[in-house]
Amino acid sequence: MNKLAKFLRALDSYHITNGDKFDLKDHNPDDDGDLGLTKAEGAKLLKTVKKRLLELQDLLYANQTHSVLIILQGMDAAGKDGTIKHVMSGVNPQGVSVSSFKQPGPTELLHGFLWRIHLAAPQVGRIVIFNRSQYEDVLVTRVHPDLLQHEHLSGEINSPEFWQGRYSDIRHLEHYLARQGTIVLKFFLNISREEQRERLLARLDIPDKRWKFSPADLREREYWDDYQKAYQNAISETARPYAPWIVVPSNHKWYARLVVIGAIIRALQNLQQQAPKPAPEVAKFLDDYRTRLLSEHP
Amino acid sequence: MNKLAKFLRALDSYHITNGDKFDLKDHNPDDDGDLGLTKAEGAKLLKTVKKRLLELQDLLYANQTHSVLIILQGMDAAGKDGTIKHVMSGVNPQGVSVSSFKQPGPTELLHGFLWRIHLAAPQVGRIVIFNRSQYEDVLVTRVHPDLLQHEHLSGEINSPEFWQGRYSDIRHLEHYLARQGTIVLKFFLNISREEQRERLLARLDIPDKRWKFSPADLREREYWDDYQKAYQNAISETARPYAPWIVVPSNHKWYARLVVIGAIIRALQNLQQQAPKPAPEVAKFLDDYRTRLLSEHP
Repeated sequence: MNKLAKFLRALDSYHITNGDKFDLKDHNPDDDGDLGLTKAEGAKLLKTVKKRLLELQDLLYANQTHSVLIILQGMDAAGKDGTIKHVMSGVNPQGVSVSSFKQPGPTELLHGFLWRIHLAAPQVGRIVIFNRSQYEDVLVTRVHPDLLQHEHLSGEINSPEFWQGRYSDIRHLEHYLARQGTIVLKFFLNISREEQRERLLARLDIPDKRWKFSPADLREREYWDDYQKAYQNAISETARPYAPWIVVPSNHKWYARLVVIGAIIRALQNLQQQAPKPAPEVAKFLDDYRTRLLSEHP
Repeated sequence: MNKLAKFLRALDSYHITNGDKFDLKDHNPDDDGDLGLTKAEGAKLLKTVKKRLLELQDLLYANQTHSVLIILQGMDAAGKDGTIKHVMSGVNPQGVSVSSFKQPGPTELLHGFLWRIHLAAPQVGRIVIFNRSQYEDVLVTRVHPDLLQHEHLSGEINSPEFWQGRYSDIRHLEHYLARQGTIVLKFFLNISREEQRERLLARLDIPDKRWKFSPADLREREYWDDYQKAYQNAISETARPYAPWIVVPSNHKWYARLVVIGAIIRALQNLQQQAPKPAPEVAKFLDDYRTRLLSEHP
C-alpha cells in the first residue's frame, strides 16, 4: 500500500459520522499514521498540499454555491492556534475568516447560546474557522455547571434533558447549515495528558510564550477526566454525516496538521467544482471586448 | 356562558399546536366570536386589556428569564401594520421592537435564509415582533419558485425534499428559541378574498393611503389560491406546542386585535411571573440606604 492510500485510510478511521459506537479511548493521540515520515518530511508535505487547498478555495469562492465551516476544539495547548496558523496561512485571506469564541460577554448572554454562532456563520463562497465554538456550551459549562448561572435561562438547568436539548439544538443548527450548502467539519485535536504537561512546561520555559498563560488554563488541567467525558458525550451526540467530527491524533503537531488539511481538501474535492463558465451571451460580450482592447492604440 | 369564558373557548379553537388535522377551510375569517359586541365596544375592551399587557410586560422585563417572539403573517391588507399599531402601542417601547422582513438584500442573500431571523431574535426580557418572517421563505418563494434563483443555493431546489428541509429548519429554530425561554406565537391574520378586495378599494379611494401600494401587491392578489395553499402547508407543517399558530379571524379588525392581544396575555400569564425579590443582603442594604436618605439634611 502506498503512503497516500495509507493516509486516506487513516483519515477514514478518524472521521466520525455516527456517534453510537464512538469511544474516545479507541483513539490514540500518539498515532502518526505509520507513514514512516519524519517531522521535517511531514512539514515539507504540508507545504505541497497547501497549494492544492488554495486551488480548491479559489473554486469555492468563484462558484458561490457552498461554504465551509471549520470548527476547532481541543484542550489547552492541543494546537488550535498553531493549526490555524500553519494550515490556513496558504489560503486567500479574502475568502477566509476566523472567529474566536471566548467567554460570552454581556450582550451575548442576553441571547440564546447559538446567537453569536449564527452571526458568524459563513457567507456563500467563504471559509470560516471557529477557534472554539458552540461546543464550549456543552464542554466548559458541562464541566463547570455553576457557569450556567451567568446565562439567563428559564426552566430546569443542568438536568439530563437540558443537555439533550443543547445537543439537539446544535445538531439542528448544523443540519440547517449543511442544507444551505455549508460543509461543516469539526476537528477535535486529541492530545494526551502527558503531552499537555510537556507543552505547558515548554511554554513556561520560553519567556516569549508566557503571555499565552492564564492561571485559569492551569486550573482547567485539574479537570482533565471531566473534559474527556464531556468530549466523549459531545462527539457521540453530534457526529452526523452532514457534520462529522474528525478526531485528530495531535501529539505530533506535523501529523495533526496533515490530518486537518487532508480532511478539508477531501471535503472540497467531493464538491467536484469547476471554474464557472460565463453564459453564452456574456462569453460573446467578453470576446468582443477583448477584440476592442486589442485594437486600442497602445 | 359569560363573554370571557366564550372568548377563551374561541381562542382555543384558533390555537393550532398540532398541524396534522389542520384545514384552513375550517376557519371562518368572518367569525367575531359571537360575543354580541359592536365595533365600538370591541375597541373599548381592547383599551382595557392593553393595561394588563403593560403589567405583564413589566414583569417580563424585570424577571429576565423569558422573552416573546410575535410573528405576524397575512395577505396584503390583512391588518399586520394595524395590529402592531393598535395592539402594541400600549407597551413600553424600551422592551419591544419590530423587525420587518422585506425582500432579502444582497448581504442577506449571501447567508442562509434564517441568518437575518436569528440576528433579530429577542434578548431575554424583551418582546420582538416580526412583521413578516422566516415564513416568507416558504410562502412567497413557494408561490414564485423562480425567486429562489436569487438565493445562492446548492443541491436540488424546489423539490418536495427542499421544502420539507425548510419546514424542518424552521421548526428546529423555533424549538431552540423555546428551549432558550422564548415564547413563540405565530399569528396568521386570516381575511377573505372579498374582504381584501374591499380594503384595497377603500385604500385606493383615500389619497393619503395610496403610498401603501405597489403594483406588486396588486399582482399578488392574482395568486390568492396559491397563497392559501402555501399557508395551509406552512401552518400544518410547523404548528407545535412550543410554537403554535393562531389563525386569527380578521375580517373584523376590532375582533382580530382582541384575539391577538388575548393570545399574548394568556401566554404571558402562564409564566406566572412575580416582581423579583432582592436577595436578603441586598434588601438589608436597601433598607439601610433608605434610612440614610431619610436622615440627610433636607
